[in-house]
Parts: sequence; structure tokens; C-alpha cells
Amino acid sequence: MSILVVGSVALDTVETPFARVEEVLGGAASYFSTAASLYHQVNLVAVVGSDFPREYLDFWRSRPINLEGLQVKEGRTFRWIAQYHMDMNTRDTLDTQLGVYAGFHPTIPDDYRASELLFLANIQPELQLEVLSQVPKPRLTVLDTMELWIMTARQQLTEVIRRVDILLMSEEEVRQYTNQASIFSGVRQLLGMGLKYVIVKQGSYGALLFGADGTYFTAPTYPLEEVIDPTGAGDAFAGGFLGYLSNREPAVDGCYSVDDIKCAVVHGNIIGSFVCEDFSIARLRGLTMEDIASRYQKLVQYSHFDRHWQ
Amino acid sequence: MSILVVGSVALDTVETPFARVEEVLGGAASYFSTAASLYHQVNLVAVVGSDFPREYLDFWRSRPINLEGLQVKEGRTFRWIAQYHMDMNTRDTLDTQLGVYAGFHPTIPDDYRASELLFLANIQPELQLEVLSQVPKPRLTVLDTMELWIMTARQQLTEVIRRVDILLMSEEEVRQYTNQASIFSGVRQLLGMGLKYVIVKQGSYGALLFGADGTYFTAPTYPLEEVIDPTGAGDAFAGGFLGYLSNREPAVDGCYSVDDIKCAVVHGNIIGSFVCEDFSIARLRGLTMEDIASRYQKLVQYSHFDRHWQ
Repeated sequence: MSILVVGSVALDTVETPFARVEEVLGGAASYFSTAASLYHQVNLVAVVGSDFPREYLDFWRSRPINLEGLQVKEGRTFRWIAQYHMDMNTRDTLDTQLGVYAGFHPTIPDDYRASELLFLANIQPELQLEVLSQVPKPRLTVLDTMELWIMTARQQLTEVIRRVDILLMSEEEVRQYTNQASIFSGVRQLLGMGLKYVIVKQGSYGALLFGADGTYFTAPTYPLEEVIDPTGAGDAFAGGFLGYLSNREPAVDGCYSVDDIKCAVVHGNIIGSFVCEDFSIARLRGLTMEDIASRYQKLVQYSHFDRHWQ
Repeated sequence: MSILVVGSVALDTVETPFARVEEVLGGAASYFSTAASLYHQVNLVAVVGSDFPREYLDFWRSRPINLEGLQVKEGRTFRWIAQYHMDMNTRDTLDTQLGVYAGFHPTIPDDYRASELLFLANIQPELQLEVLSQVPKPRLTVLDTMELWIMTARQQLTEVIRRVDILLMSEEEVRQYTNQASIFSGVRQLLGMGLKYVIVKQGSYGALLFGADGTYFTAPTYPLEEVIDPTGAGDAFAGGFLGYLSNREPAVDGCYSVDDIKCAVVHGNIIGSFVCEDFSIARLRGLTMEDIASRYQKLVQYSHFDRHWQ
């Protein structure tokens, strides 16, 4: 089941208290595509400038990533410059240079339209609406967003939320969007907008899954001795999540089972954990299904306990 | 298997952004005893003043709580006054009035000496050492502490840590005591001091269990719609933890199985969740094993996922 992603591709300059990298492959769509292509074919829609390093294109071509929808425009690729604080959880964006991204409008190639899984990575809600108007209703649409759009494009964001199945939000974003102090009340409000699931990201503490059917699931994170760079962890999470589902068969009603959705969240956490172990997508490059399976088995061991007591 | 606890009994005045209570039953030993007595006989050692309300003594007498070691001294009971911030996770201690607690020295009654499980609740490390000198080596000793002792009584605290089996610490306390930014490095240092297990408390995010044998376990928290007052959650956690173990048989080597320890952590989280649903010990009063079993089954459902995939 092929996966369509629309989002940003960037060149990131990232400084942590311990190291610094310059102009490495970044952007939500880059992390997502690289992650999801570990599982299945990915159809990428994004824009890069004429300065975009050929080596990244070559790398993607070596994976099941379709680049037909990747626009290459005269000009500079989107740049993002950020600095992490000592806790490695919070960061300051020092500079954002939009470059060719400023005039970006997603165009979905004909070959992509049959994609059954759609990830609307974190871009302007109005561009996400442009995507939705170009594709027939996919089997499952997952939406990511950020504080900026909650503050500046709330109305369009609301329109997008009403048209997707699953929303990814951090705890802070749930509070900001819903104006509820309690995550549970906030999520209830979001589910009331027609979502099937809300996944609340808790950084290094993991993720909570809430279903409109009452499902609640708290997924363990894979424990990391050392975090090198958490950039892209949320996008890699989405890549693992949809990547896992792309290999599963939905039930006759077209919906995935709750067990599959839970498993997908665990895969998301696993891929997110790998990403944090190096800068950019470096840790995903050589990753195999065996590496993923090994962490999966460890997470079972780390989080399961006797189903019955006494 | 009876449980000995030594710690504080206090009258708490607590203000949250939503409510306020005055001079209600508080103190680590109060929360612990009430919680652990849901499972088994508890032997309490603490001090109260002549003003200590009789109703609390009557309540404890209605439970399997032995009060022989509870000293009643002429004077005022320990008072603690605190105010919670909007996030309900952080608080300011506004006042501490030691009263009769100032001259407290624990005396372990003869009848208590056969207690096989010992909880050294959060009191001065030198008093914890006094306890250890009065009891033959129990089967299992669990230690709680706080930032104040890490800063002001590090040497005695270190001596206590070397003589116990399990240490409870928050993430912040692990960092403070070990001077390690990484929890994993900090815990390794602590386990190197001879502990069998370290349990790292993460507030509303749950608890991590680390074993000297390499065990790692991340326990789910029971999701609460609303937190009324988190005071005592850590002590109630310890009560659920040791309470559960008090009904289990250790293996022939005298040690509990890892599965039992994991289960005990889950019980700790469950009892901790109940405590947060009301002020003081109010929510624990009418609690039954059926209530606990119901949350246990829900936590299985909320945190388990397919052991195998593909």
C-alpha cells in the first residue's frame, strides 16, 4: 500500500551542547520518506532549490522513494538553523531561510493519486488543503502541525483537522489548540471534530494514543543512553507508523484493527529512537528490518508485565 | 510478610489552583501505611504531637496498622504548608513547622523486629541509619529521600544507600546525586553502589525500573482525567509496591522474581493514581482490592501490544 507524503525538504544547521552539523539533509518530508521507505514505496512531494546536493537525491533513488513529485526550482533550498538547550528537549530556531519554499504549491503527479496512505507533514494548513483537493480520499490520512499554525492559521488548520483521520500533536499543542489544561479534555474536544485517533507526542516520554472508539494506549519509548540530535523524531515516528501500516491489510470495513494501530505506534517510537542517535537521517541509512525487530522485541520485554496477578 | 515503615506523620495544609484543605492527615508514613495496609499488616514508627486528631488514630486502628511504634509526644504535630502551581506537578513549600518531629528518634518495638519488608520513608538519613541499626537485615529494604538530604547530608545518605536494596528517586534527584546529565549513566552509578534496583519516578509520566541484573521496565501510569492533589503519590507508590510484594513468596534464594518486582511497580503506579484523585488519604479510605484489580486490568489493556509482528 503506497504512501504519499507532502512536506518540507531542508538543509539544516543544528547545534547541540555537544556537537554541530552544517547544511545536512533535513525537513519533515526527508525524515518521513527515509523512515517509511524502510517498509514500503513512498511518493514524495516537496520542493528543493538548484543548490540541493545531488548525493541526497542519489540516496533517495537508491530507496523505494518516488521523486516524480519533487520540484526542483531555480534558487536556494529551504534552510533551518537551530540550537538545542542542555536538556536536548527544547531548542531555539535561530534562522529560517525559505528560499524556493516560499512559492511552493504542491502538485500531486497522476501516478501518486492511487496512494492509499497520506501523510500531511508540518506545512501551512492552506497547502495541506491544496493537497486534499488533489487526491481522492485515501484510506488513511495522518496530519502533523505546529504551534505556528495554531497561532496564525487556526481556521484553515481546523478545516484540515476535520478532513483527516489521525492527528499528531505534542501535549503543548493540544493545550494551545483546545485551550484545555487537561490533555484528556483537549483530546476529547479534538476527537469530537471527527478524528479517528489522536496521538499525543510526549518527547522522550513516548506517545499516547486516543481513539474515537475509546481506545487508550500508552506506548513505551526505546531507552537511549545518549541522544545526539532529536530533530526529525516526530516525522520519523510518522514514517514508522504509516510504514508499518502500509504492510498490513485493513479489515473488510477498510479500517485497521486497533492492534495494528497500537503496533504502528510502537514502530513509530522505534524509528523515532533511531533518528535521535545521530544527526540528520544518518542513523536511518543502514537500518534493517532486523534492527527494528530487535528493538521491538526489547520493547515487549521492557513494557509487558503479568496479565494476571494473584 | 509484615511491613515496617519509619517516616513522618504530619498535618498538611495544601492549596492547589482549584481548592484548598487545612490540617489534613499527611506525611510520608501516613500515605505509605494507609496504602500498604490495603494488602497486609503494617508496623508504623513515627511521632505525633498531643494535638494529633483522634479520628486519624481511630481510622488506622480500623486497618491492619500496628501503632505500637507511634510515639505521642507533648507538643504540636509536624505541619507542612504547600501550594501547587498551575501544572499540578510543581509546588512551593510555604512553611514547615517541625513541632515534636524536631526531637524525633525512631525506636523499633520488639514486635516489629521480625518485619521482613522495610520502607525508609523520606526523613533525615541519620535517622534512617538509626533504624537500620535496630533491625536485623530485612528481606527487602526500600529507601526514599529528597533533594534536601542530597544537598545537606550527602555523606550519611550515601551510607544509607549502600545498605538498602531498592532506591526510589525522581529524575531530578538522580541527576543531583550523581552529577550525571543522563539518567542512564546516573542509574548505573547508583547500581554500582550495591543496590538491586533503582526506581526512577517521572511524576505523571510513570516510573522506570532498573535492575543490577540488567532489568529495565517502563511502567504505564493510570490516566487520570483530573488530578486533585498529587501530594503523597510517591509514598503511596511505595505502599502499593511493598504491599504487593508482602503477599508474594520470594524464591528459594530469598529474592523476588523480576516478574514480581515489575508487578509491584504497576501496583505502585495504581495506588499512586488513586491518591491523586483526592486530598490527603481520602481516596484510599474506601478502596478495595477489586478497585485495584480493575485498574490493573485496564493498565494491561492500555500498555500491552502484540508480542510478535508480521
